[in-house]
Amino acid sequence: MADIDTPIHRLLAGYAATVLAKDLENFVALYADDVHVFDLWARWTHEGLAAWRAMAQGWFESLGDERAQVDVADVQAQVAADLAAGSATLTYHGLSADGRELRSMDSRITLVARRQGDAWKIVHAHTSIPIDPATASGIFKRPAE
Amino acid sequence: MADIDTPIHRLLAGYAATVLAKDLENFVALYADDVHVFDLWARWTHEGLAAWRAMAQGWFESLGDERAQVDVADVQAQVAADLAAGSATLTYHGLSADGRELRSMDSRITLVARRQGDAWKIVHAHTSIPIDPATASGIFKRPAE
Repeated sequence: MADIDTPIHRLLAGYAATVLAKDLENFVALYADDVHVFDLWARWTHEGLAAWRAMAQGWFESLGDERAQVDVADVQAQVAADLAAGSATLTYHGLSADGRELRSMDSRITLVARRQGDAWKIVHAHTSIPIDPATASGIFKRPAE
Repeated sequence: MADIDTPIHRLLAGYAATVLAKDLENFVALYADDVHVFDLWARWTHEGLAAWRAMAQGWFESLGDERAQVDVADVQAQVAADLAAGSATLTYHGLSADGRELRSMDSRITLVARRQGDAWKIVHAHTSIPIDPATASGIFKRPAE
């Protein structure tokens, strides 16, 4: 089931690369104009590329001289015709300007992508962490299995 | 983009019907043997149908004489060949034995399904609520837009 090179793998790699570079234009280019995002933070949904661009711009600007390194693991992908879907575990490392790790957290991501001409674009993304039923708080680290 | 009758719509309707009925066998029959679930609660991931069946059995038994009514809204779906993917907002109503609403919460769901012979089976499900950055707690109700 898990292929080593699918549109999902390439889009996840593109996500990690553009986040690390705080490259807003190439980050936005990963997504379709009508993208629909269930993001981990704050908002119930982001509808359309303008809303999603605004989220990314705010995020990248908030980093100042820090950077976010995203490690991608446990990728599963399904592809049929011009539709692809898949999931992964992401680890976000907050890095200082001189490369020291300041903090980290894990998250879960699901992507749905469509082929548009020669390019695959993300039409739906869903990121989250599970909720601890005892505290109603998020669980920010994946436990050791 | 949103069709009124896709495999995603039918699987969401099957989910709501089998949860309301606490019908474990027909609930489990919605999912593929190798299903991979990012669930809202507690665990990082559920791998395979035995793990997912155990979750559902524990959930249904925990309800006692209460029931869970699931309302499905905002369905978006993509279908190509034998692959389907989609998303929705779910509202869970906890109902007493005599039908009174005891509590409710919203959640976000993404489904990926594959056709296996004549049937579509869920191969991946991701449910979540967003996290409030100020408190690190889950946001259990969708705000009015």
